[in-house]
Amino acid sequence: MDAHIIIFLLVLLVPLSSATSVVDFCVADFNFPVGPAGYSCRNPANLTVDDFVFSGLGVPGNTSNIFNSSAFLAIDVTFPALNGLGLSMARLDLDVGGTIPVHSHRVSEVIIVIEGTIIAGFIGSDNTAYYKTLNRGDIMIFPQTLLHFQVNIGDSPALAFVALNSASPGFQTTTFALAANDLPTDIIQKITLLDAGQVRKLKTIFGGTN
Amino acid sequence: MDAHIIIFLLVLLVPLSSATSVVDFCVADFNFPVGPAGYSCRNPANLTVDDFVFSGLGVPGNTSNIFNSSAFLAIDVTFPALNGLGLSMARLDLDVGGTIPVHSHRVSEVIIVIEGTIIAGFIGSDNTAYYKTLNRGDIMIFPQTLLHFQVNIGDSPALAFVALNSASPGFQTTTFALAANDLPTDIIQKITLLDAGQVRKLKTIFGGTN
Amino acid sequence: MDAHIIIFLLVLLVPLSSATSVVDFCVADFNFPVGPAGYSCRNPANLTVDDFVFSGLGVPGNTSNIFNSSAFLAIDVTFPALNGLGLSMARLDLDVGGTIPVHSHRVSEVIIVIEGTIIAGFIGSDNTAYYKTLNRGDIMIFPQTLLHFQVNIGDSPALAFVALNSASPGFQTTTFALAANDLPTDIIQKITLLDAGQVRKLKTIFGGTN
Amino acid sequence: MDAHIIIFLLVLLVPLSSATSVVDFCVADFNFPVGPAGYSCRNPANLTVDDFVFSGLGVPGNTSNIFNSSAFLAIDVTFPALNGLGLSMARLDLDVGGTIPVHSHRVSEVIIVIEGTIIAGFIGSDNTAYYKTLNRGDIMIFPQTLLHFQVNIGDSPALAFVALNSASPGFQTTTFALAANDLPTDIIQKITLLDAGQVRKLKTIFGGTN
Amino acid sequence: MDAHIIIFLLVLLVPLSSATSVVDFCVADFNFPVGPAGYSCRNPANLTVDDFVFSGLGVPGNTSNIFNSSAFLAIDVTFPALNGLGLSMARLDLDVGGTIPVHSHRVSEVIIVIEGTIIAGFIGSDNTAYYKTLNRGDIMIFPQTLLHFQVNIGDSPALAFVALNSASPGFQTTTFALAANDLPTDIIQKITLLDAGQVRKLKTIFGGTN
Amino acid sequence: MDAHIIIFLLVLLVPLSSATSVVDFCVADFNFPVGPAGYSCRNPANLTVDDFVFSGLGVPGNTSNIFNSSAFLAIDVTFPALNGLGLSMARLDLDVGGTIPVHSHRVSEVIIVIEGTIIAGFIGSDNTAYYKTLNRGDIMIFPQTLLHFQVNIGDSPALAFVALNSASPGFQTTTFALAANDLPTDIIQKITLLDAGQVRKLKTIFGGTN
Repeated sequence: MDAHIIIFLLVLLVPLSSATSVVDFCVADFNFPVGPAGYSCRNPANLTVDDFVFSGLGVPGNTSNIFNSSAFLAIDVTFPALNGLGLSMARLDLDVGGTIPVHSHRVSEVIIVIEGTIIAGFIGSDNTAYYKTLNRGDIMIFPQTLLHFQVNIGDSPALAFVALNSASPGFQTTTFALAANDLPTDIIQKITLLDAGQVRKLKTIFGGTN
Repeated sequence: MDAHIIIFLLVLLVPLSSATSVVDFCVADFNFPVGPAGYSCRNPANLTVDDFVFSGLGVPGNTSNIFNSSAFLAIDVTFPALNGLGLSMARLDLDVGGTIPVHSHRVSEVIIVIEGTIIAGFIGSDNTAYYKTLNRGDIMIFPQTLLHFQVNIGDSPALAFVALNSASPGFQTTTFALAANDLPTDIIQKITLLDAGQVRKLKTIFGGTN
Repeated sequence: MDAHIIIFLLVLLVPLSSATSVVDFCVADFNFPVGPAGYSCRNPANLTVDDFVFSGLGVPGNTSNIFNSSAFLAIDVTFPALNGLGLSMARLDLDVGGTIPVHSHRVSEVIIVIEGTIIAGFIGSDNTAYYKTLNRGDIMIFPQTLLHFQVNIGDSPALAFVALNSASPGFQTTTFALAANDLPTDIIQKITLLDAGQVRKLKTIFGGTN
Repeated sequence: MDAHIIIFLLVLLVPLSSATSVVDFCVADFNFPVGPAGYSCRNPANLTVDDFVFSGLGVPGNTSNIFNSSAFLAIDVTFPALNGLGLSMARLDLDVGGTIPVHSHRVSEVIIVIEGTIIAGFIGSDNTAYYKTLNRGDIMIFPQTLLHFQVNIGDSPALAFVALNSASPGFQTTTFALAANDLPTDIIQKITLLDAGQVRKLKTIFGGTN
Repeated sequence: MDAHIIIFLLVLLVPLSSATSVVDFCVADFNFPVGPAGYSCRNPANLTVDDFVFSGLGVPGNTSNIFNSSAFLAIDVTFPALNGLGLSMARLDLDVGGTIPVHSHRVSEVIIVIEGTIIAGFIGSDNTAYYKTLNRGDIMIFPQTLLHFQVNIGDSPALAFVALNSASPGFQTTTFALAANDLPTDIIQKITLLDAGQVRKLKTIFGGTN
Repeated sequence: MDAHIIIFLLVLLVPLSSATSVVDFCVADFNFPVGPAGYSCRNPANLTVDDFVFSGLGVPGNTSNIFNSSAFLAIDVTFPALNGLGLSMARLDLDVGGTIPVHSHRVSEVIIVIEGTIIAGFIGSDNTAYYKTLNRGDIMIFPQTLLHFQVNIGDSPALAFVALNSASPGFQTTTFALAANDLPTDIIQKITLLDAGQVRKLKTIFGGTN
């Protein structure tokens, strides 16, 4: 490499060689508070390829719970390289009869079924329910914010992966959100038209009070 | 006005004088299909100030319904000047005891109470319930996508206006969305943990089948 | 609540339980400098519902000034919960004959008239003036960046609220901006075609120099 | 090129070979109305490199007008290849003493001076005036929406180019916008604090009525 | 369901019941030209759940080509429900030794390895190469625009799925892009520093001229 | 200026007078780490107009390098006022025969030729090459992410300026990116179809290893 090249490289690279100058990516630095666009970026000089790879989705989740399912999330706080790049993933394990309960998030989601047979669906803002049986290799799109769910209707465990277009989708599971807090039962009744007994049952299941 | 001015105006205005060249605003033209960013724009040459003013929120809504409330929307399809500008409004009328049931939308909302006393709240994605009594002149913010509600707890009708940062927020009322369609009762049970009887009650109220 | 539930909750919640992991909302933390997307977020663990409610718009503003009007702003720096959520509000009080002088901001605005009769208008980039008398309950949209104004033309005080789709709209009142600084009078003359005497009058009114 | 390659190309290209499938670029098709995100795209199959090149900025503009200046715009309606790509340019010619009058637009602008000496400035929303003499090779940034201007203070014609980050910036020249329409003089007075005589003078210059 | 409910539903739903009013989703209508934000939306009244499900990724691609690999794309033009929702997917099949050649696209990508062992990598804008061996269940992020690639280094076929945060990512395979057209060999030499013979070899492989 | 005015100003300005409240602009503060939306903002109280002007593009770059060219960048790290405003510029100097090698970046670019004659081109994602001779005053648009280049084909040095719609475009020069690192030669061969000798030649030129 001769001197002329070196000069060219300097001209081109000087403005780019500062550690903080490149926002090709922005691996989250949890030493600073998050902001509306995500976390601050770690210094690229301290990163290696290992920061961009995550193995957490390779292991089946523990499905010994009331929904017989597990959703393991690769989002900014578990896989910091996603910060600022507008993508996240999750691994869904559903035992026979297992369910990912109806939920919502700020962004859209696409699912791919790897094993098993599930019914997946979403509900439009005109209340139309779009639901269908999905088999291995099928993908389905769940538009942003709309309520959606997955249920294993096969006779073997199901495995699926989902991708979402935010590093921080903001999952909100509906009956969980309604019942797992101190919102008074009479208010929940009024805003849902559920019976008091039913609200209390949900509060018991999800650990709510009042 | 002398000739020199005229020439200057032409230089500056020629590229701007075509009817379609100015996207200062984009009053919706319903003769073309909507797209991801909203509707096509009507020709500005055919617009008047009346297209930018909407009087629909000046009239109390009919609250003779199960929720004793009314939400009248100024969104793109009712007030086409909002198209593309990222704002909408709604008028909320709540009779004594009236309720805006728990619901969600793609964007954030700010409420201002004009008359009466309401409890308003939202639920975070960690299931914390943030709710408080609001009086005349109070404003409250409901972050995008999160479940929220309003209940008139005063002894007179309440009036409030809300603004949202989309011309098409995509309202989804939760129990309505779950029950006002053909989603089978057993699936709803699994994805909500509600009892079958409760689901059937909601289906009856909201007009669902299956 | 049995153990299985607890496990399910853990799987779902662990990545979400870190104080900084949820950007459902981002109440501004003024201990760090603002960035292009707004302020850093306060730790959700230290927030209560009071952080999401603002009562500053419930009180009439002081209109004893040259414009006989008052604009009180609920924006990020006065109501930090707005930070990152893309919405702000303002309360406009206009005495009889009062005026919100012609101004501009980065984002769009919708006004709702609560009391009184005003003329409101905006000017397109082709210089067309869109203006109209608004009464109680009327709403009007002012598209982003375009010059606009409100004038109380009734015989009683007027009250209106506006919503804007940014937590930091960046208000710039036109003649104020031209005259309330040290920009030399001869430059102002050249860039506005105003007479020197008129410029000096504005500088006197608004406190400018040079 | 052997058969195997052909198959690979097909797999990769079939979804991309439809004329409308590639939004690498979106040369404006004026046969359809504009929308909030810009114009529809012409079929790429009918485009050549000539659609991506524009020579209109190579010629000095006519500066025989009251401002002794010319601004020639390369925006979506004059250079349709800019549509959807978020960039535009303009050529500024300023005779000795020439002025680009104070104006505003939705997006930010950067200027580069090619010939001559100008004073350029902008005014912040706190009314601070930032202005400075610029010479050949200097660049200056004018943030979105804020009022700004350029004045040739040298003894020879000045030439500059500006770039803006929208294909449709929405130029609004301030005194022009106030006076070149039918907005009544008394309203203009109230919203600007200008004298009636001064408003009438501007209306005469810019061709306004009322 | 009694009459009161019906009234409530009407108030809430009338503005939402027009076929074009709901942009919950925007299944692409190829009868209109694409625009900068994507395709126009099909009328929701004519859609079923089948429009939101795609089975094309369930079948292995034909890898009988020079790269011994196949990339099958679920993007807007193959799976129209993705239009406007900011997500797409692809299925990658790599025979033993198979390669997804170095390429780029407008948006970020996350890969999940389902079967086999691959080396995947990307190159930062400071020319650092980040590459690593990925096994079943590993995910890796490839930031927007940066060059990246995948190579099967195992002794069995590899299967992976990728998700990207655009319905139209705009794939550009580097040596393919340089050589599969009429760009003159001497220009390619100058802009790449490749030898003429090497350029001609690539043109032969990829079907370029000149 | 009388007291009434002062009161009005206070009402309007109090929320805007805090140093951190105005994000009219966001001159980069390098004391904090960058985030996905750019750098934190310096306190406006410490800024002068000099922060908004940059003279670095007024000087010809050193073209004594293998490409006989120079690209000097006005981006966030060299001209901090660009931070958050979505614009940057660069000065291109090309000696006779000089070349800006084929490269890519996250955003779109527009070029204006000031002196000389160049061939400029870009390659679409369908591999079509769009290239043309540009003369003084011509502008050309290079859409985001797509490979593009410039070559001086005249008999005198060429000068051009480019503008890009990001303060941090993320330049990636193609053969430089492939060869100036430790990516093993055999992998480069597989992902480009270049010969091993050619890869080694590039590694020698650009300073790569392996």
